[in-house]
Amino acid sequence: MITPAMAALIDLALEEDLGRGDVTSEAVLAAEATAGGAIIAKQRLVLFGVEIAEAVFRRVDVGIRFVRRAGDGEELSPGDVVATVDGPARAVLGAERTALNFLQRLSGIATLSRAFVRAVEGTRATVVDTRKTAPGWRALDKAAVRAGGAANHRADLASGILIKDNHIAACGSVGEAVRRARRQAPHGLRVEVEVSTLAALDEALAAGAEVLLLDNVAPQQAREMVERAAGRALIEVSGGVRLSTVRAYAEAGVDRISAGALTHSAPAVDLSLEIEVRSAG
Amino acid sequence: MITPAMAALIDLALEEDLGRGDVTSEAVLAAEATAGGAIIAKQRLVLFGVEIAEAVFRRVDVGIRFVRRAGDGEELSPGDVVATVDGPARAVLGAERTALNFLQRLSGIATLSRAFVRAVEGTRATVVDTRKTAPGWRALDKAAVRAGGAANHRADLASGILIKDNHIAACGSVGEAVRRARRQAPHGLRVEVEVSTLAALDEALAAGAEVLLLDNVAPQQAREMVERAAGRALIEVSGGVRLSTVRAYAEAGVDRISAGALTHSAPAVDLSLEIEVRSAG
Amino acid sequence: MITPAMAALIDLALEEDLGRGDVTSEAVLAAEATAGGAIIAKQRLVLFGVEIAEAVFRRVDVGIRFVRRAGDGEELSPGDVVATVDGPARAVLGAERTALNFLQRLSGIATLSRAFVRAVEGTRATVVDTRKTAPGWRALDKAAVRAGGAANHRADLASGILIKDNHIAACGSVGEAVRRARRQAPHGLRVEVEVSTLAALDEALAAGAEVLLLDNVAPQQAREMVERAAGRALIEVSGGVRLSTVRAYAEAGVDRISAGALTHSAPAVDLSLEIEVRSAG
Amino acid sequence: MITPAMAALIDLALEEDLGRGDVTSEAVLAAEATAGGAIIAKQRLVLFGVEIAEAVFRRVDVGIRFVRRAGDGEELSPGDVVATVDGPARAVLGAERTALNFLQRLSGIATLSRAFVRAVEGTRATVVDTRKTAPGWRALDKAAVRAGGAANHRADLASGILIKDNHIAACGSVGEAVRRARRQAPHGLRVEVEVSTLAALDEALAAGAEVLLLDNVAPQQAREMVERAAGRALIEVSGGVRLSTVRAYAEAGVDRISAGALTHSAPAVDLSLEIEVRSAG
Amino acid sequence: MITPAMAALIDLALEEDLGRGDVTSEAVLAAEATAGGAIIAKQRLVLFGVEIAEAVFRRVDVGIRFVRRAGDGEELSPGDVVATVDGPARAVLGAERTALNFLQRLSGIATLSRAFVRAVEGTRATVVDTRKTAPGWRALDKAAVRAGGAANHRADLASGILIKDNHIAACGSVGEAVRRARRQAPHGLRVEVEVSTLAALDEALAAGAEVLLLDNVAPQQAREMVERAAGRALIEVSGGVRLSTVRAYAEAGVDRISAGALTHSAPAVDLSLEIEVRSAG
Amino acid sequence: MITPAMAALIDLALEEDLGRGDVTSEAVLAAEATAGGAIIAKQRLVLFGVEIAEAVFRRVDVGIRFVRRAGDGEELSPGDVVATVDGPARAVLGAERTALNFLQRLSGIATLSRAFVRAVEGTRATVVDTRKTAPGWRALDKAAVRAGGAANHRADLASGILIKDNHIAACGSVGEAVRRARRQAPHGLRVEVEVSTLAALDEALAAGAEVLLLDNVAPQQAREMVERAAGRALIEVSGGVRLSTVRAYAEAGVDRISAGALTHSAPAVDLSLEIEVRSAG
Repeated sequence: MITPAMAALIDLALEEDLGRGDVTSEAVLAAEATAGGAIIAKQRLVLFGVEIAEAVFRRVDVGIRFVRRAGDGEELSPGDVVATVDGPARAVLGAERTALNFLQRLSGIATLSRAFVRAVEGTRATVVDTRKTAPGWRALDKAAVRAGGAANHRADLASGILIKDNHIAACGSVGEAVRRARRQAPHGLRVEVEVSTLAALDEALAAGAEVLLLDNVAPQQAREMVERAAGRALIEVSGGVRLSTVRAYAEAGVDRISAGALTHSAPAVDLSLEIEVRSAG
Repeated sequence: MITPAMAALIDLALEEDLGRGDVTSEAVLAAEATAGGAIIAKQRLVLFGVEIAEAVFRRVDVGIRFVRRAGDGEELSPGDVVATVDGPARAVLGAERTALNFLQRLSGIATLSRAFVRAVEGTRATVVDTRKTAPGWRALDKAAVRAGGAANHRADLASGILIKDNHIAACGSVGEAVRRARRQAPHGLRVEVEVSTLAALDEALAAGAEVLLLDNVAPQQAREMVERAAGRALIEVSGGVRLSTVRAYAEAGVDRISAGALTHSAPAVDLSLEIEVRSAG
Repeated sequence: MITPAMAALIDLALEEDLGRGDVTSEAVLAAEATAGGAIIAKQRLVLFGVEIAEAVFRRVDVGIRFVRRAGDGEELSPGDVVATVDGPARAVLGAERTALNFLQRLSGIATLSRAFVRAVEGTRATVVDTRKTAPGWRALDKAAVRAGGAANHRADLASGILIKDNHIAACGSVGEAVRRARRQAPHGLRVEVEVSTLAALDEALAAGAEVLLLDNVAPQQAREMVERAAGRALIEVSGGVRLSTVRAYAEAGVDRISAGALTHSAPAVDLSLEIEVRSAG
Repeated sequence: MITPAMAALIDLALEEDLGRGDVTSEAVLAAEATAGGAIIAKQRLVLFGVEIAEAVFRRVDVGIRFVRRAGDGEELSPGDVVATVDGPARAVLGAERTALNFLQRLSGIATLSRAFVRAVEGTRATVVDTRKTAPGWRALDKAAVRAGGAANHRADLASGILIKDNHIAACGSVGEAVRRARRQAPHGLRVEVEVSTLAALDEALAAGAEVLLLDNVAPQQAREMVERAAGRALIEVSGGVRLSTVRAYAEAGVDRISAGALTHSAPAVDLSLEIEVRSAG
Repeated sequence: MITPAMAALIDLALEEDLGRGDVTSEAVLAAEATAGGAIIAKQRLVLFGVEIAEAVFRRVDVGIRFVRRAGDGEELSPGDVVATVDGPARAVLGAERTALNFLQRLSGIATLSRAFVRAVEGTRATVVDTRKTAPGWRALDKAAVRAGGAANHRADLASGILIKDNHIAACGSVGEAVRRARRQAPHGLRVEVEVSTLAALDEALAAGAEVLLLDNVAPQQAREMVERAAGRALIEVSGGVRLSTVRAYAEAGVDRISAGALTHSAPAVDLSLEIEVRSAG
Repeated sequence: MITPAMAALIDLALEEDLGRGDVTSEAVLAAEATAGGAIIAKQRLVLFGVEIAEAVFRRVDVGIRFVRRAGDGEELSPGDVVATVDGPARAVLGAERTALNFLQRLSGIATLSRAFVRAVEGTRATVVDTRKTAPGWRALDKAAVRAGGAANHRADLASGILIKDNHIAACGSVGEAVRRARRQAPHGLRVEVEVSTLAALDEALAAGAEVLLLDNVAPQQAREMVERAAGRALIEVSGGVRLSTVRAYAEAGVDRISAGALTHSAPAVDLSLEIEVRSAG
């Protein structure tokens, strides 16, 4: 679904690039010229964003034909076709950059997510994202993570309880913070709390914590805390986890590994629209 | 200036994260609690985005005090303070992630741009960006590039003429494309055209091209074309230029080097809000 | 916080009422006339919406002085003052109806919620709302429920898992549905599932359900299911619960009672702005 | 017509409920599953809102088939079908609650309006609404009133002159207020003025008032004022009129009876979407 | 009041001009430079739009000081000062054109309206506008008309009944159309109907028409119809009325003369911002 | 293309006119009535705006059939058909005024632009527009200018460098201002600078100016400056150029003549929708 927020983002994107016209195409192409082409992968990648790319082309001109040739989550090799596009040349060229900008960023996230998922294969750990998404892109970034095979942490501040250091300090103790959350927060939410010592872990569990977040711990510490928890809560680690270190955490026995890098630092993948402009006729 | 499009992006960002409330803070913090803290650099970085971060905090609560302690374009070291923040604890914590997400992405772009600029120091080349920005972020991404010391290519499809392969093919020849652009496009715009051979270069210059774009050429080819052009036009190279290769192009004597990576693949920098929640009083 | 969505709703509201001017005030009041007055409770009520009422007045004219005299969640009697308002007469009268429309609906929800909460006092049950809010008003309606002393069920479709009949039928069994949800959904969410028989209850618990929803059951059935669950899961009842029947459910020992009526059928409370127009001077 | 403001309200509503996805359906239903069903009346009601319900489903997914089976203003009995819906299961379930929330509130208004209209049958009185509509819902609420058979008072502050106590006090007298309005206001608008005594009534008529508003009068007073006006102006009564008292006012001979309750306190009617999820095929 | 629709128009206007920055000022002015100046009338004019001009400057930078020196509706001579402006140079220059574009168009409407009003002085006729306003500018255009001293016809399709040829043809007769309108339309609206013959005029009056619109009639015809109506209804003429012909209509004895030209063809007036850029310090 | 900003303007326009309904059509026309008709030129004109007029009708009701019978830029005579329209009568009449308001203003601009273009035929001069467009209408106004045969100056403050008096004063000299612009501004933009003396002209050229703007000069002065420039830069004149004076400037040998009047003072052209309402059947 293209949500209202996504539609608003598409509008911002088209307005910022095409809102005052395309002086080049208007100067050199006939109004009646048509163009056809294909969006092609130029590197190995995991695809995500085809629906939004299609929405971009069709927002520019509903007469553009867009045929999907690959699906979200699919792994593509250089030369593989993502979709074909056909329509008025000025419209196709006018939408091109915006559509590719969406696809390249989102597929970049899916591709990096897939790499993290591969890195933990065979362990009990699930890779999850964070709220470190590009402002305005939350639902898209998180859908790209899913397309890559990783899972989502909370969608927003209302869809998960996560008690951090500041909350704990303000409450006086881990236990008090957990108890307040269990009493006050919507009953469909588990209580997750950051712990950094075994004592805090014990206190959190005693107060009813259901998920423990180990922030910025070394794999060895994570293993000790997993053992101490002994299955009484889900264990998540976070904090600067990279592709090179993720497996060590996974092998420590944690349940979830969250990585902000999936969404805030995934390099764009290379995709291009190879196109031919035709005269009208 | 926070443009209307930037304000719309801030609204999308706050709505997607905080629109349904913050269940954790509402459950564990008193409504009257206040919080104060500082945004701190956790790595070396070039800063950009302080104005938008401030706008985020103040959009959540106009009663938040935000004091800038560093300026856009400034180079910071780990531990340096970007700004201090003080206000109602729920508001400060509610705005935190969104403000940091803006700052981390934009400072990432500024930081990478600075690295590119450093890499070409002493040559005649200027590093410039492209239209490969995050959809919805065009003006912000390009301002971050400037903060990093690089320059902007065209802002949108209306603020620069760039005749590419497809346009040339549709016109029949480089010369014809350039002539049409000179005749039809707004007179404040130079005519830039993609050329890949010396013959095309000659033809483009004869037709009045003012900027030549060499796309996906090796540095040695670039040098030959620079020599052939002999100052009759500005020369830009583009296409997969990286930090490791940018100097070779600069030494080939080109005037402009455009790099999509500045905006589409800059990793986020590490910044955090270190905060203390206080009881009201 | 006035979220972006709330600001958009305020804009829709002012535009629909005042966007083309106020022909009466413009015809009969001098432009310089000022007005002052007070928003007064005309019945017993629980207040909610003072912040948004203030935002309405100040959106019409930032020069209006609005002084809060009562707080959200407070119980007022006829004649009690909610707030005082002072400013240009045309602006005060132009904002009046919209501000009151917000206050009357939201205080209506808070008032009805308080009545439900009172009705279950002394039991273990917590009254909760549903997603049956006025479209466009979700965050406001749910905040009004909290002001009334009741609690919120999930904020949206992303902040709670609720497996209903249709989902179960599509999965083949209650157990399979619960297992899929535990495997696939964000780990911060408990799994809630609708059950209508003791067999389904057993199957759901065996599969790991954490909350059981008893939809459209009689209090006696609810009691039996509470006993069978024996504390292994939270128990919620829903379905046409009214003020007259809510206590019977509470006494059946359930943990949560959800009532759509809190938000979809709360009558507006009676509040008025008693005002005096003064000549300028 | 779905006006721009209605489209904006639909967008707010879908974004607040579905903008971050539907974790339950995504976890337990296959992406290819389809669903079909019918919106069914669960009580006697007067229908309104079918067009907007359809718009909601189709905004979520244009591939949803929505077939209207009953029309606005129609009286339905329990079990009657409002419309049938068919499409991708996740989309149908994702739109369900929002579409029903619109239908239930709007049909509630139409149903209550019809009851008021029935209550005054055989008299000269027409039941009319007020501006006490849910902020953001003005045009919808007023259309629901019409569907119920009642009439609309002014749409906004620009589409009717209504001189109230404050205006009169500011002008010095009823007569002066009426004269100013006749001189200054758009000529297509009748001048309506609040009067509470026979002397004021005489003064208003002498000054050219075309409609007299009797606010918070007893039926007997209304009758006396109707007689005194003797057809020289339309007579409207307002102020806390209820279903139980409306006929007494109508029998007093007034022309219009306005009731805020039609829009601010109509309980939602009971409607449900009975649905079956199918595997794809 | 800057209504939500006006704020949206300001945002569109600033985004379209300044959304991608001001390359000239950014290239040649220091970021710290300040500027001060005055908006000056360059011709005789009637002023309107000072509030929206101020809103434009302050939307660009809240730090700009804007001091009103003349009021809406005031007649200015060349050299008169409308307002003074002071603030950051880039902001002042960036807002200049948009603010002037609002002022020049709106003052153009006020100026032309004043000329029409002058032309009918001493007659009973009031000059009124039409719905032929610039799309997006309705409330502004109509306020400019009032500032010029003319009056407003209906604000929109909901704030006035105007039965035209097509409606009459669809109803079968003038009388039937008027009767339907009296029966069905909101009771605060007078019934206005287009008539072109004396027979139609009689029929309309008999059916209860309160305003008669004579469309595209010569002054002499207008006079005959005024005489025939003999005060039983307000008489409006419309249709291609110009400054050169408006008095003839006024002298025919009509009550209202509507002229689309007031809003659709008023030439912009000449105003400029005379400014001095200062270094910071 | 209907850009997002144009769609927003259409929404503002429909909401302001039709957002609260059409009381006349709702009162006198049956809901099922249909209407058909044609948009007809009532004077000689150059057409522009057919696409946006179509978008208006279809935004009101997608079931309206709109058939274009003339194209943008076409010269029409009285009686010529622009388009035919067919659909539900209330929808057609509800959209009529807004669609015509767009067409009449935009065709007015195209018509005046054509007149300017005709006036300079046979000279080297091209007529260009300015940024003096109606706020919110930039892209539309400029497209209308092109339809009239004139050319566009810069689209916004980012798509052209134009150094004016204030910039020069702030820089200290014309030469310094030009040098800063060449160094700092995007390389795809030519440097245009205002000059008013031969000395300034020489200095600007020496510094690398590519376009010279002669503001408020007499034709004879323009001729002298053209001769002095001797082809080393494009020459533009601006400042109060009218249809009666434009040829004198063109004959002075300038390259571009910019006229704000094209967009800020073009009178609307006369177009009407001649329509027939039919009963349903």
